[in-house]
Amino acid sequence: MAEDTPTTDDDGGRPGAFDHLFTPAVRDGLGEAGYGSWRAIDAPDAVSLSFGFPFPESFPNDELAAAAEAVFEAEGGAAMQYGGGEYADRLAEAIAERERDRGIDCDAGNVLLTNGATHAIDVVAHAFLDRGDHVFVEAPTFMGTLKLFANYGVEVAGFETDDEGLDVGAVAAELESRTAEGRPLPKLLYTIPTFQNPTGTTLSRDRRERLLDLAEEYDFVVVEDDAYGDLRYGGDDVAPLKALDETGRVVRVGTFSKTVAPGVRTGWILGDDEPLDTVGRIRAGGTNTFTQSVLGYYCTEGGFEGNVAELRAAYEKRRDHILACLDDHMPEAAEWTDPDGGFFVWVELPEGIDAEELLPRAADEGVTYLPGEMFFPDDRGENGLRLSFSYVSLDEMERGIEALARATRSALRERRPR
Amino acid sequence: MAEDTPTTDDDGGRPGAFDHLFTPAVRDGLGEAGYGSWRAIDAPDAVSLSFGFPFPESFPNDELAAAAEAVFEAEGGAAMQYGGGEYADRLAEAIAERERDRGIDCDAGNVLLTNGATHAIDVVAHAFLDRGDHVFVEAPTFMGTLKLFANYGVEVAGFETDDEGLDVGAVAAELESRTAEGRPLPKLLYTIPTFQNPTGTTLSRDRRERLLDLAEEYDFVVVEDDAYGDLRYGGDDVAPLKALDETGRVVRVGTFSKTVAPGVRTGWILGDDEPLDTVGRIRAGGTNTFTQSVLGYYCTEGGFEGNVAELRAAYEKRRDHILACLDDHMPEAAEWTDPDGGFFVWVELPEGIDAEELLPRAADEGVTYLPGEMFFPDDRGENGLRLSFSYVSLDEMERGIEALARATRSALRERRPR
Repeated sequence: MAEDTPTTDDDGGRPGAFDHLFTPAVRDGLGEAGYGSWRAIDAPDAVSLSFGFPFPESFPNDELAAAAEAVFEAEGGAAMQYGGGEYADRLAEAIAERERDRGIDCDAGNVLLTNGATHAIDVVAHAFLDRGDHVFVEAPTFMGTLKLFANYGVEVAGFETDDEGLDVGAVAAELESRTAEGRPLPKLLYTIPTFQNPTGTTLSRDRRERLLDLAEEYDFVVVEDDAYGDLRYGGDDVAPLKALDETGRVVRVGTFSKTVAPGVRTGWILGDDEPLDTVGRIRAGGTNTFTQSVLGYYCTEGGFEGNVAELRAAYEKRRDHILACLDDHMPEAAEWTDPDGGFFVWVELPEGIDAEELLPRAADEGVTYLPGEMFFPDDRGENGLRLSFSYVSLDEMERGIEALARATRSALRERRPR
Repeated sequence: MAEDTPTTDDDGGRPGAFDHLFTPAVRDGLGEAGYGSWRAIDAPDAVSLSFGFPFPESFPNDELAAAAEAVFEAEGGAAMQYGGGEYADRLAEAIAERERDRGIDCDAGNVLLTNGATHAIDVVAHAFLDRGDHVFVEAPTFMGTLKLFANYGVEVAGFETDDEGLDVGAVAAELESRTAEGRPLPKLLYTIPTFQNPTGTTLSRDRRERLLDLAEEYDFVVVEDDAYGDLRYGGDDVAPLKALDETGRVVRVGTFSKTVAPGVRTGWILGDDEPLDTVGRIRAGGTNTFTQSVLGYYCTEGGFEGNVAELRAAYEKRRDHILACLDDHMPEAAEWTDPDGGFFVWVELPEGIDAEELLPRAADEGVTYLPGEMFFPDDRGENGLRLSFSYVSLDEMERGIEALARATRSALRERRPR
């Protein structure tokens, strides 16, 4: 799989024979690490707190194999034909029903199935973004989306987050100043408002409302990536942006990668009839009706809701554990977020310690993580790092955090003048 | 599924509230039929010779359900994790092995898995095509690719085909004249050289070599879409363009949609290390490792080759039958192609009969087809139509061709001055 191949150091032989034929946006990215390159950190003996992988014991394999059989028995070849059969249709209905439960006014016609959430974001980007357009994001944000935007040659501005999520006041100030100075406004703001990747923080209700007001006032589209919204382990529900959206400016993205398994590679775009109809025309090619039918069965007759409840309980334990380990072991000068859900904790190392520089030492001590810089559209983030509590066992997690604490302390000692 | 929704007449309410935010290329296409709109012709009682759907009895459902179980038993959660497990890896190896059997020098590292062939073409387009770039295609060609190119805002020029496929001499003349006049050259030529969609014709060996010489001389990339290459029912094998490619300019696209089932939505891009590495960075998001694992098992242990052999025999019968029906029933002034494989026959109606105008009458008589115009990047093709012999039974096929003949004769009678 190309995604598992280290690409960071692949570019020694550049320029390639066809570089001049690529688009300007692609040419700008030549020599940089591509999509998936964050999987390249190679320390097989270390505990990996790097990736947002669900723990594999959580995958409902038996249920999915049984669903495949049941679907074939019920509808024969229809599931495998272009467009799919009844169970594929049921999937969009099941998604719409769950979204209505969150307060979103929608039906199956507002759901456009995609090959995963990143594909969904890519389709939306393709519909709205042209070379030179401007985009706003949280900083830090999901590195996959940053890589994806880079392919469109757009200008990305990142806005800080705090424990209430995106600093919407800073967004407002920038919009105001761009307007005053006649600088270009964004066409699109991409946000992960709930259990954000990588910080784990959740955008407060007040800020959500203000953000939507800004979208209306300054005329941009809001892409709400809610990959983790089903996985709340604490705090109160906050309405999705789409539930608060009165003008159709919010295009919402979801996925089964975290609630079923990444391998099913099925996501969706939920939007008002317009712009969804037009966005749907950009989605080139069909989607995987085999998997959609299996998921359609699993979601309506196969135990999906029970699985989600079990996942919440399992991940809550993991989140509690990683926070306890950080409390127990990390030096006081480090800080971290306190997520109510999702997969991630964001750590700010003590001042003057660069997370990317620390990584080899941390790997030697026995842990890997993703350094903060890769989550920023610019040069910030050197002090931060993302820990995932989704993948390893509780025991491994403790060993990992102990190793991180050792590496941090040793860097702290060196930082001080002797 | 959005693909099954008629979109042709959806646009009465335009302009939408967000039209101004779409890209210029998308705005240009607003009001036009989108990807999938060719599925909208509504005549449920007529025999459908419209779509390139495999006949559903051909889908190896039991084998795929068994493969899913076997994969889960063998590797547990690995198949469902990001990146997939051993069987997902085996799929790329199996594809490379089959491609080597066709004379292409490659290994698994030259195979980039995608969510189907159209996704593959879209990824390649995204890497190379920017607004205003120029593209050459066969005319007629696959309408899905034309829709996809439109999303990039490129200029598409279509070149005629005859019974040896694309008129490469016409391509050469155009390249020469563009060069002489200082007009822009294409960055990319898209071709379906073998059992072309929609004509069923195959590009001759001589023309293949000449086309590659032109690509080198005029510096463009050739995208070889070989969706049908496995399904040869007559004539001699012709080497794929990629097997003749000495410079790495050919990017080859394949799919399991015709040899397994459309629902598995798995295709691939096969290319030299460069440009494939760079193209791979454009593929945003992962792919469906569940399906890939099932296919990896099916291709290596589950009976894939036997299935392909059975498909060849079944489709050969269908091709022979549709050609016999055309011979038996169509008026002499009509002409049609004589495909050695694939799913399609292209019919040229007698002069002065417009296939799109004929369609309602044909549907009343009991048959539907796809009118030729949708396969052209310009206004040509009104005289042609595509028949698919892949989907309906032999009996239905005969009834369909009889209906087409009746509709044609009745149009012929009206065409003549009384």
